[in-house]
This record gives sequence, structure tokens and C-alpha cells, in this order.
Amino acid sequence: MTNKVVIAVDAMGGENAPTKILLGISEYLKVNKNVFFKIFGPQKLLENEVAKYDIGKDFIEIIHCEEIIKDNDTPLSSAKKKNTSMWQAINDVKEKRSNVIVSAGNTGALFVISKLNINMIENISKPALAALWPNKISMNVVLDLGANVECDEKNFEDFALMGAALHTSLYPSHQSKVALLNIGSEEIKGHETIKKAYQILENKKNQLYDFCGYIEGNNIMNGDVNVIVTDGFTGNIALKTAEGTANFISLELKKALTNGIIAKISSLANSFNLKKFKKRFDPRLYNGAIFLGLESPVIKSHGSTDHIGFTNSLDVCVKTVNGELINKIKKNIIL
Amino acid sequence: MTNKVVIAVDAMGGENAPTKILLGISEYLKVNKNVFFKIFGPQKLLENEVAKYDIGKDFIEIIHCEEIIKDNDTPLSSAKKKNTSMWQAINDVKEKRSNVIVSAGNTGALFVISKLNINMIENISKPALAALWPNKISMNVVLDLGANVECDEKNFEDFALMGAALHTSLYPSHQSKVALLNIGSEEIKGHETIKKAYQILENKKNQLYDFCGYIEGNNIMNGDVNVIVTDGFTGNIALKTAEGTANFISLELKKALTNGIIAKISSLANSFNLKKFKKRFDPRLYNGAIFLGLESPVIKSHGSTDHIGFTNSLDVCVKTVNGELINKIKKNIIL
Repeated sequence: MTNKVVIAVDAMGGENAPTKILLGISEYLKVNKNVFFKIFGPQKLLENEVAKYDIGKDFIEIIHCEEIIKDNDTPLSSAKKKNTSMWQAINDVKEKRSNVIVSAGNTGALFVISKLNINMIENISKPALAALWPNKISMNVVLDLGANVECDEKNFEDFALMGAALHTSLYPSHQSKVALLNIGSEEIKGHETIKKAYQILENKKNQLYDFCGYIEGNNIMNGDVNVIVTDGFTGNIALKTAEGTANFISLELKKALTNGIIAKISSLANSFNLKKFKKRFDPRLYNGAIFLGLESPVIKSHGSTDHIGFTNSLDVCVKTVNGELINKIKKNIIL
Repeated sequence: MTNKVVIAVDAMGGENAPTKILLGISEYLKVNKNVFFKIFGPQKLLENEVAKYDIGKDFIEIIHCEEIIKDNDTPLSSAKKKNTSMWQAINDVKEKRSNVIVSAGNTGALFVISKLNINMIENISKPALAALWPNKISMNVVLDLGANVECDEKNFEDFALMGAALHTSLYPSHQSKVALLNIGSEEIKGHETIKKAYQILENKKNQLYDFCGYIEGNNIMNGDVNVIVTDGFTGNIALKTAEGTANFISLELKKALTNGIIAKISSLANSFNLKKFKKRFDPRLYNGAIFLGLESPVIKSHGSTDHIGFTNSLDVCVKTVNGELINKIKKNIIL
């Protein structure tokens, strides 16, 4: 049989590329062999890297591309270079030779080149950037996280149905529960756009996903809902504020727990539990943002993540394909 | 001498009022006697409460008001009841009999009644709700936190100069460093309003406060700036998201540290350091939101805080008066 998931991989994006990319692929192949990697980048460099790791030749194909997009290239200048590993990987999905594309490179470039090449899903007006965010029970899908600074009610409606489809693809055993991020839970709260979106979603209630009204920032992680819809400006600030808060608390906690000899000893005794705690908050577990709204899934791995983080974004790639993300979005559109 | 700070206190707002209010006053009088409280609420009830605590009669006056604003009253219905403890306390500031008003009651009502009664500072177009938010070095002033869902560039400019004045009043030894909350640090990032505000503030650079450009959500707590300006929608969501993240981490940490007998023992050994950690994050320390833009300071204590939190909001009252907040705002306007 085949029906392997074919992943187009930009091997040259992000810190420590291509090493972390190929190491991540070799790790992923240990747990799932029903996958084939088309790896885009300079042939010789990639062949040398592949030789270092346990990657069977049946699982990969290297496609030579001379050029590379750098982190400080603008999206527009990047979009002009067609022989880059990123452009060629995206083009492979456009040409239906791969099912999904993943890159740890320049986010703006990935977004612009994907939009240029891959068709939008009919009736979706703007693509959105979604990411995973832990909650008490499992995981939230949160969108938009910066692709659209200003949004209208139709965009919010699209984000809701795309986010619900993504959540169901990634976590098939959970019903998607959608909420709009707002500054209060009463119907009268917020700006006009969000109130109109509320009415649209309230009137479109259906069996494929639940609409749960508004959610406030302090309840994002309480597990009552799992798809959180907002504009790209607010979403970006909320996500980064949560990251900053978590970092701040971790640093203060570290100071508190290592202050003095008794603290050091007891922290040591406690290290096993703290390890579990750290693991629960390991950002590599949540790695993999998803561009939604195009006819193929486009996955963004964090630029600064390591090979373990990249492996997790490969898991997101496979789940969006096997979970039939694009079909699920289309089903939600015609509701 | 006198020049005591005269504080108009709505004794009937928030959970456990008036007990926590009067207990908070008695605690505050232990550390600062250069203050006089005008306490608004039902005379007999308050007299009975006062008798329970160590509150010298020279420091208080009870002003009888029959009615009370409830948490679920709308701002508009609240604004019609003129014999409430909140309305009368605000009116006392309006009539210049008190220097500052504090309430732990209904936020919307406090905002609307204050706006109805107290004149706006000339040239300020909208009042804003500011609060304190810890950073690595000291404290941030963040505004707006929900008073204005939509803002223009003039509002942002006003928020910047009012926030700078507030920070200098509360922390006179720190230079105010203002930044606009945005989704990137480059000039081209964000929506049109924030870009226009950036230009205005960049062109108004002065010696009373620094303008430091944009700040992203993940850097709010890093201490590089201390006055963070945003619209009420974004600010409210950022603040509540930070609260939710901190709560989530605390709960997970508690689970991790008390899982098993070894963990329990070592946590016990560690309790002193954890207590310091908890104290650093005690929300009661940051209690006291400030309505800025009116001719008198209006302080909002959190409804669910206890007497210690209320005591801290009394400290904010005194600092805004002694720090000449309103004069500082006016000085910043004419820059």
C-alpha cells in the first residue's frame, strides 16, 4: 500500500538549519514510517547531513535549490526569488506533488509566497495564522495570530469555521468549541465587529462545532472552549503576553527555588516533579503554527526551536493531512 | 500643619464591604497618619463597624447615605441614584472637599458617575483606566484597560502623557519610559492608528518622559519600559491573559510540587522561598486601578480583594495626591 503523507520540507529555514531539520526527520521516522519527505535545499549540503542520521533512502528525496531566504529578507524581496528552498517547497504543494509544506524560515515570506502560489479556499476571504495553546484539559487552537491586523465579521466567521476544522483534525476525540475573545462575557460587550460576528455565529449554530459565545483573556486556559477566535493584532499580543508572563514567572520561580542551601537541596529532591512541570510547558510541544485558508496546509515551525520542536511540527503536518483539514474546512463553509 | 490627604471612601462597594473597607483603613492608619477619611455609607452600620477597629475619631468622618450600588446594576441605572455611597463620595471630590475618591464597587458605575460629575482635564479627549503590572525591575503602568474599546491617535497620545505622569507620581525615583503595545518592534508594524501615534510621540520627545517606540507582548515584563499604552480592548485582553496564564501556571506548579511524599517534604523545606515567590505575585500588592483624565484622581480597588488589598489602594490614593498627579498630567499636556 502507499497513501503515505508526502511532506514538502524547506530544509534551510530557521536557526541551525538544515541540521535540526534532518535530525527532526530522523526522529519522526522512528515513530511513523507512513510518510515521505521531499527535502528542498542545496543538494550536496543535504546529502552530507542525511548521511549523518538514520534516515532510510526510501523515505526521502532531495530536490536541489541553490538559494535561501534569510530571516531579515522582506516578504516582498523573498517573493521575487523563485529558486529558494521555501518557494520550491511551496510550489511542490501547489503542483499537488506534496500534501503539505513545512518551513522553520521567515514567517512573512512563507505567508506571502504561499498566498501567491496556492489558491485560496473558495468563500474564505482572508487566510489566518493559527497556533496551539495549552488549556487545563487539552489544547486550544487560537487564531488569527498576526496575519490580519484588521478584521471584519466575515473574517471572524471564517476563522471560527477554519479553527473548528483544525481542532477536529488534530484532536478528533474532542468536539470543537468555538469562542470569540472579548473584554466581557455579556452580549453588549466589545466593538461592533465582534458583536456582528457573535450574531452570525449564533445564527449558524450546527452539529459540527459548538459556538460558546465570548471568552475573556483570563479564561483562555480553563478548558471550557478549545477554539479561540480573534483578530491578528489582539491574538498576537495575547499570545506573546502569555509567553512573557510564563517566562517571567519561570525566572522568578527559579530564583526563589535556588536561594540558599536548604532550597537547593530540596529543589534537587523535587527535580523529578519539576521536570514534569517543565515538560508540561515545553514550548517545543506546541510547535507548529498553521496557515489556514489555502487549498493546502502550510505549517510554520518556530525558527528558534530545535529538532524536537521540528519533529512535533512534522506531527502537525501529518495530522492535518490525515485529519482531512481542507475537506473539513469546506464542510464547515457550506453549513 | 495639616495638609492631610482627604480621601472620600465609598464604604459599600465590593465583596465583604464595609468590613474590609474599615479594616483596611485601620491598617493604613498604622503606617500613615497624615490622612483623613470621609466615609460614605449607612451611618449606623458604619458606626458599628468603626467601633470594632482601631480607628481614631480624629481621622474619620462618616457621611450617611442610604442607598447602595450593586455589582449587577448597570452604569446607567446606577447614575440615576444620587443618594448612593458611590455617588456621594464622587460628589465630595467634585466639590473639592476631598482630594481623591476610592471605591471597590461596580467599575462601570464608578466610571460613568465620575465622568458625569468631575470635569475632564482640558485637552484630554477621553479618560482611561490604568493599572499596575509588575516587571523585572519595578512596576509598569498599563493603560487603557477597558474604558475605550476604540481609540484614535490623539487618545494614544493622551494615554502616553497621563501614564507617564502617573508613573512619576507613584515612583518618583524612576524616569517614565513610554512604549506603544504592538505586534512588532519595526516602525511599519501594526495598524494605521498606532503608526500615527508613533509619529506624534516621536515628534514630541521631551525631558519629562522618554518615548521608547513599540513593545511586544512578550516584553511587557522585561523592565525596559514602564508605561505601556494601548487601546482598551487590547489592554483588557492582555491583562486578563497574563492573569489567566499566571493562574494556570500556579495551579500546575502546585500539582507538580505536591505529587508524592518526597515532593511534599521538600516542598515543605522550600516553603520559605515559595512564600517569597507568592508574595512577589500577590495581586493585592498591585491593587488599585486609576481613572485618568478627570480633574481629580479616581481610584478603583478590586471588588474581590480583601482588607490588605484595600489598604494598598489607599496607598495609591495618597501617592497620586502627594505626587501631584493632576498637575503632572497638565505639565505633560503643554509640552
